[in-house]
Amino acid sequence: MSKDLIYQKGIVMIIVLKENPNPAELNSLRDWLRSLNLEVHYSQGSSTTLMGLIGDTSQIDLDMMKSLPVVDKALRIQDPFKKASIKFKPEPSVVKVDGVSFGDGSLPIIAGPCSIENESILMDVASSVKSNGAHMLRGGAFKPRTSPYSFQGMREKGLELLIAAKKKVGMPIVSEITEVSQIDLFEEVDLIQVGARNMQNFELLKELSKSKKPVLLKRSPAATIEELLMSAEYILNGGNENIILCERGIKTFETSTKNTLDISAIPVIKSKSHLPVIVDPSHGTGKNNLVIPMAMAAVAAGADGLMIEVHSAPHTALCDGPQALVPDEFAALSKKISNLKEHL
Amino acid sequence: MSKDLIYQKGIVMIIVLKENPNPAELNSLRDWLRSLNLEVHYSQGSSTTLMGLIGDTSQIDLDMMKSLPVVDKALRIQDPFKKASIKFKPEPSVVKVDGVSFGDGSLPIIAGPCSIENESILMDVASSVKSNGAHMLRGGAFKPRTSPYSFQGMREKGLELLIAAKKKVGMPIVSEITEVSQIDLFEEVDLIQVGARNMQNFELLKELSKSKKPVLLKRSPAATIEELLMSAEYILNGGNENIILCERGIKTFETSTKNTLDISAIPVIKSKSHLPVIVDPSHGTGKNNLVIPMAMAAVAAGADGLMIEVHSAPHTALCDGPQALVPDEFAALSKKISNLKEHL
Amino acid sequence: MSKDLIYQKGIVMIIVLKENPNPAELNSLRDWLRSLNLEVHYSQGSSTTLMGLIGDTSQIDLDMMKSLPVVDKALRIQDPFKKASIKFKPEPSVVKVDGVSFGDGSLPIIAGPCSIENESILMDVASSVKSNGAHMLRGGAFKPRTSPYSFQGMREKGLELLIAAKKKVGMPIVSEITEVSQIDLFEEVDLIQVGARNMQNFELLKELSKSKKPVLLKRSPAATIEELLMSAEYILNGGNENIILCERGIKTFETSTKNTLDISAIPVIKSKSHLPVIVDPSHGTGKNNLVIPMAMAAVAAGADGLMIEVHSAPHTALCDGPQALVPDEFAALSKKISNLKEHL
Amino acid sequence: MSKDLIYQKGIVMIIVLKENPNPAELNSLRDWLRSLNLEVHYSQGSSTTLMGLIGDTSQIDLDMMKSLPVVDKALRIQDPFKKASIKFKPEPSVVKVDGVSFGDGSLPIIAGPCSIENESILMDVASSVKSNGAHMLRGGAFKPRTSPYSFQGMREKGLELLIAAKKKVGMPIVSEITEVSQIDLFEEVDLIQVGARNMQNFELLKELSKSKKPVLLKRSPAATIEELLMSAEYILNGGNENIILCERGIKTFETSTKNTLDISAIPVIKSKSHLPVIVDPSHGTGKNNLVIPMAMAAVAAGADGLMIEVHSAPHTALCDGPQALVPDEFAALSKKISNLKEHL
Repeated sequence: MSKDLIYQKGIVMIIVLKENPNPAELNSLRDWLRSLNLEVHYSQGSSTTLMGLIGDTSQIDLDMMKSLPVVDKALRIQDPFKKASIKFKPEPSVVKVDGVSFGDGSLPIIAGPCSIENESILMDVASSVKSNGAHMLRGGAFKPRTSPYSFQGMREKGLELLIAAKKKVGMPIVSEITEVSQIDLFEEVDLIQVGARNMQNFELLKELSKSKKPVLLKRSPAATIEELLMSAEYILNGGNENIILCERGIKTFETSTKNTLDISAIPVIKSKSHLPVIVDPSHGTGKNNLVIPMAMAAVAAGADGLMIEVHSAPHTALCDGPQALVPDEFAALSKKISNLKEHL
Repeated sequence: MSKDLIYQKGIVMIIVLKENPNPAELNSLRDWLRSLNLEVHYSQGSSTTLMGLIGDTSQIDLDMMKSLPVVDKALRIQDPFKKASIKFKPEPSVVKVDGVSFGDGSLPIIAGPCSIENESILMDVASSVKSNGAHMLRGGAFKPRTSPYSFQGMREKGLELLIAAKKKVGMPIVSEITEVSQIDLFEEVDLIQVGARNMQNFELLKELSKSKKPVLLKRSPAATIEELLMSAEYILNGGNENIILCERGIKTFETSTKNTLDISAIPVIKSKSHLPVIVDPSHGTGKNNLVIPMAMAAVAAGADGLMIEVHSAPHTALCDGPQALVPDEFAALSKKISNLKEHL
Repeated sequence: MSKDLIYQKGIVMIIVLKENPNPAELNSLRDWLRSLNLEVHYSQGSSTTLMGLIGDTSQIDLDMMKSLPVVDKALRIQDPFKKASIKFKPEPSVVKVDGVSFGDGSLPIIAGPCSIENESILMDVASSVKSNGAHMLRGGAFKPRTSPYSFQGMREKGLELLIAAKKKVGMPIVSEITEVSQIDLFEEVDLIQVGARNMQNFELLKELSKSKKPVLLKRSPAATIEELLMSAEYILNGGNENIILCERGIKTFETSTKNTLDISAIPVIKSKSHLPVIVDPSHGTGKNNLVIPMAMAAVAAGADGLMIEVHSAPHTALCDGPQALVPDEFAALSKKISNLKEHL
Repeated sequence: MSKDLIYQKGIVMIIVLKENPNPAELNSLRDWLRSLNLEVHYSQGSSTTLMGLIGDTSQIDLDMMKSLPVVDKALRIQDPFKKASIKFKPEPSVVKVDGVSFGDGSLPIIAGPCSIENESILMDVASSVKSNGAHMLRGGAFKPRTSPYSFQGMREKGLELLIAAKKKVGMPIVSEITEVSQIDLFEEVDLIQVGARNMQNFELLKELSKSKKPVLLKRSPAATIEELLMSAEYILNGGNENIILCERGIKTFETSTKNTLDISAIPVIKSKSHLPVIVDPSHGTGKNNLVIPMAMAAVAAGADGLMIEVHSAPHTALCDGPQALVPDEFAALSKKISNLKEHL
């Protein structure tokens, strides 16, 4: 037993053992930890024994550790993510998407319809948002819908229309991927969106980590900020550093909004990670009258950009377009944001 | 059975009955509803029967209604609050607290220590925040603490110190009440705070409704916005219209903040009620590095004021003062907010 | 700096400091901790410094500690409650309420109407539940209702009826208190219920700690199990050991039940505390068809008793009686529970 | 305008319009609804207009409807799922997996390690659980892990070992799929598990709907019961009726358990759907000392089966095996469950 356990090198995880742990189980735990190349130090109190670990504990699942029969509590002293951490890279990352920069204070706005429905509506919206200050065009082709009876998106054909709009109007585009096998279809898409429901589709994340194509990673409504950063770590670990995070609301007991948009996630992420973070107030609230105030709040709290649904005729949209702003409302928002960012 | 049930007058609640309801129970429900002076209309579909109610349904508890053996679903068409509703009073209410106005766009800042600990610290903080732009002084005398072993506040003596500070520095004061029997002690307190843990202490709300003394009603971390407005309704219904609401975070699964500050509550409340709403980013986040960004977000989203903890020496505070800003940080916040509100 | 910090005596709290903490703030923290009679030990790693505390940390608020500018993380190694802890008293406490025992495996059932409405209904229900196996009679006189327009209970008159029923039928009674000033009225009430909304009404808890009168402490829908045990600690710390805990559902995003009944709270509480715990499946689910299966689940998981709403004519009840079981259903439940407890 | 809107045929959705809706938007909404082959009826009150819809509204997203600028509230009178509904098929479905039946009261237990690590451990556990009453063998080959640095499973090789164990020990097997492209590998797996993180991986659900291979669909920690049933609807709608649902805990603010196991989901699902539902208390609680009491609670509440992690040497497991029961504990659980189900 070491009397100076934490002193010399820096403990990275502390484990509080249960009283009177089974010695065989305890030895087995120690042996397993050593097999992970961790130094294990003990510290015996009057009624409690602590273990201090030195080394790389990133492969240890903290929930697993807490569930061990001999373990009472466990505390990770270093965050479980490494390449996403501000300690790994203290300066903010700037992600460039075909000339549009996220993370350098320029605060771009991504706008467009929730789902692509036909060419003329898409072109109308694209021209309209461009002339009103949007920097990128969004449009969903593969739509993950709660119900099998809801419109599932135009799929390949929708992507083709979006790519056509990109060329005609001259804005980089973003669209959502829902399956590994679709990756080839996204070659001309400038920013690939991983939607909230796929934030922990790790097979997809691993595939997206293999190229340098920028990824927009949306937070799942059930994910902690740490889990979001761990999903980003999958992409970073595979070699792709072009990641933009997106807050879009978490599930809570409140029913007057579809989700509770967690604005505090912005400064929290900035205190832990170098990655840029944008906000989607359309899905985050589910109410079109809340989009503008929440977009303002996001920018005032330090967001690196916004993602806004805009529709030329929201009441005829096939998808959740109806919660979208109409072009006039988007123009108003764009002006307000532009004014706000000059005075923060 | 009426064929034109909803047409003539306006249904205020719709009840979807279970299939094949027990006739005796159904009659009993109908008789009870009629005893509340409600008109009851039926509408028979192929497999589902609806009931439409006309009249004042505010005394009906919707959860109770949904739990009835013959009821499948129930929908309230009008909000359950009346005097707090924007339909009752469409123009925003302005609440004046000894010359400081909440709800008229002036956006006052309440600042001061979490708890009152001694005279010299209190006077220091009071002078400091006043000279840096605060409009009101806060300070806790009766402290509701999770643990019986934590400092419980200076109680009567604390209130006396706060009242002395008010006179010396010249700012209206706010402090928290925790029990009906304390009301007389609050005569010289300009704004009585009902803390989150007492938001549904209805005996206390009823007592506070009996005078015109302004009340700062904080949202419980477990309350929906509707429940907050129902608690305000208790005070309004008793005759006191001087109510300021305060958002201070809700309980969620996220662990990187103490609570999740629900910024969207601001525009939601403004769409439903005429009452002013302020935000407490100190308790809402529990992290002093999040106070400034979340204060900015609150103001950008339309808050009518802020409540900020400030402490002259946060690391020696007895209560949760340590999460407070120090005077320099408060001065910076005050300047940023002042600049921001000019450009919204 | 100590090299053997944790070895000799047993660290009870570990504090992970931020990198490069402000030395003045750090000294100030250390001085404050020492003023609480705590030994403070440091341990310097390559990038992280830990502080280990030895002594009684129960007066420290962990959220406050985490919010300190120099603190990154904090871990309590011992639970913050003392007298409620199984370490303080390893054998289960048995709370006797006028001959009915909670915590000894006898598994009593408390039954009766949600609110007392008139003498004849109360007497009917009382006789009925007694003959069907209930051990105690419940009935609400002071009703905390979300809406000021809902029935607020018969108050003093209701308590009188309940006491009359107790004498006539011969069962101990339980009723809810909502305000300190009501305590004298509860002299003949055998078990005083602190409702979920008052679980953190600490002034009330302190008053109830002054006698030996048994207290039924219901978990708030927003309280963690630790917070529930801290509220029990208030009562224990004042000298009253006769506490029965009650799980009745927590707030979650799920909407098909009023609350989510946290059955796992039963074994969790039993692993941390000696206090008996019962379950209220009526309020926990808000649906009368869920009462029986959830009562069964509670008993199978180890609950020390049940609290069930029963009404002779649920569809005419003024309060949330309608979610109550009718006497026949209660008789069925009582039989099922009786059979179940023989085979666990 | 129709005066007898709801009378004749059965309204399936009611829409409460905002006051003074924009007439063009209202007409546009009406036209869109009619384009979906819905009958639209109006009902004009003093201040509120209702719309009643007759027809098949399953393709309408309720959140989208609520977010429309002219819509205040919306209520679905029929559940959005059809083939999963108890109205579509009132008798309980029995799903047979190679001779093991779920939904007929036989209450099978699935047991085995969280992840497959090597042949000898797997064979040991398989033999052990079989001799102690398990009916099926579980084992993870493709492991969705929060961290890219955690063990990701043995993948193809793991599946091969599991299939070998099936043949040797003679128990049907279940394993988790994480990607559409893996389907061919699962030909000899008797029950394909869709894990909580993939519950809304709709591309995967659609693929699984194309065969008759039984699917174990786990509830996401962030999914409502309705969302779980909508995911089942994807599989049913594609033609595969062999679905077993699994409750395994939802995300809440409580921190003493990893998730909050929602036992009430069992009777709620049974009141809405004909599909069998089992419970996984290992992942639902994350604590091995809670597995037995929560397994008992699940069975007492009406679960159709259990899924239990068992490991021959939990303290050496590479995955979250450590939270698993050891064989002796599993034998005890198996006996308790067997006794319990005879006395419900």
